[in-house]
Amino acid sequence: MSDQPAYFEVPPVEPDEPGRYVAIERDLPVLDFIPGLAMRPLVGRNLLASFVRYQPHSEAPRHAHGEEQVFIVIEGEIELELGDERRLLRPGDAALLPAFVPHAVRTFGEPAYAVDVFSPPRKPMLEKLRAGSG
Amino acid sequence: MSDQPAYFEVPPVEPDEPGRYVAIERDLPVLDFIPGLAMRPLVGRNLLASFVRYQPHSEAPRHAHGEEQVFIVIEGEIELELGDERRLLRPGDAALLPAFVPHAVRTFGEPAYAVDVFSPPRKPMLEKLRAGSG
Repeated sequence: MSDQPAYFEVPPVEPDEPGRYVAIERDLPVLDFIPGLAMRPLVGRNLLASFVRYQPHSEAPRHAHGEEQVFIVIEGEIELELGDERRLLRPGDAALLPAFVPHAVRTFGEPAYAVDVFSPPRKPMLEKLRAGSG
Repeated sequence: MSDQPAYFEVPPVEPDEPGRYVAIERDLPVLDFIPGLAMRPLVGRNLLASFVRYQPHSEAPRHAHGEEQVFIVIEGEIELELGDERRLLRPGDAALLPAFVPHAVRTFGEPAYAVDVFSPPRKPMLEKLRAGSG
């Protein structure tokens, strides 16, 4: 065991905040940046997880941002355009989007569900939450 | 539109690295910190997403760390102990774990699948990946 990183230690540091259990559809607000996409953000300090329900035939147009992102498909099929490539992703697929990589997403005949996690938290989401317009 | 944050802009900044599509079970290494848990890490700069398959009756003992974490259940049921509370989580449930919040997870009679996303990337995982012992 001595050559193993200490994965399961409990350092003697008090947390600043408690942990938070979340029932995604019940507890999180919905942001409606674009028709057909319902984004439910869970906001941390370094992280923002956005749980996104896509209606069929919906689309997030090509965009880019300084926040790093992971994209994880949970249900259905979502086409992800990443730089110059397009692939149809399904549960079991994910993507890593370094800062400023242009990307777009699209669904076809079925609804879909995915999670985006951003670090740092995606700024326009924080602004929209603060504005109370979600 | 003018009062909306600019969610879908493309700032004129070249990315340092390309985006990366990932087939989780095919492309990611497996880390075996504990019997019964197979962790597949996707490593970014600010983020590390760890896709974790739990066998039935497996357990990650209580631990804490300075990295912030989100925990997202994808399949099955996982008991999450968070501070002084324990809850059985299912798909549709998640949790936010600020730095240094003690936590433990446990499965019962069925396998389960969850995603942990850490920011910054969880250090013992980076060390184990670097050591090539995954």
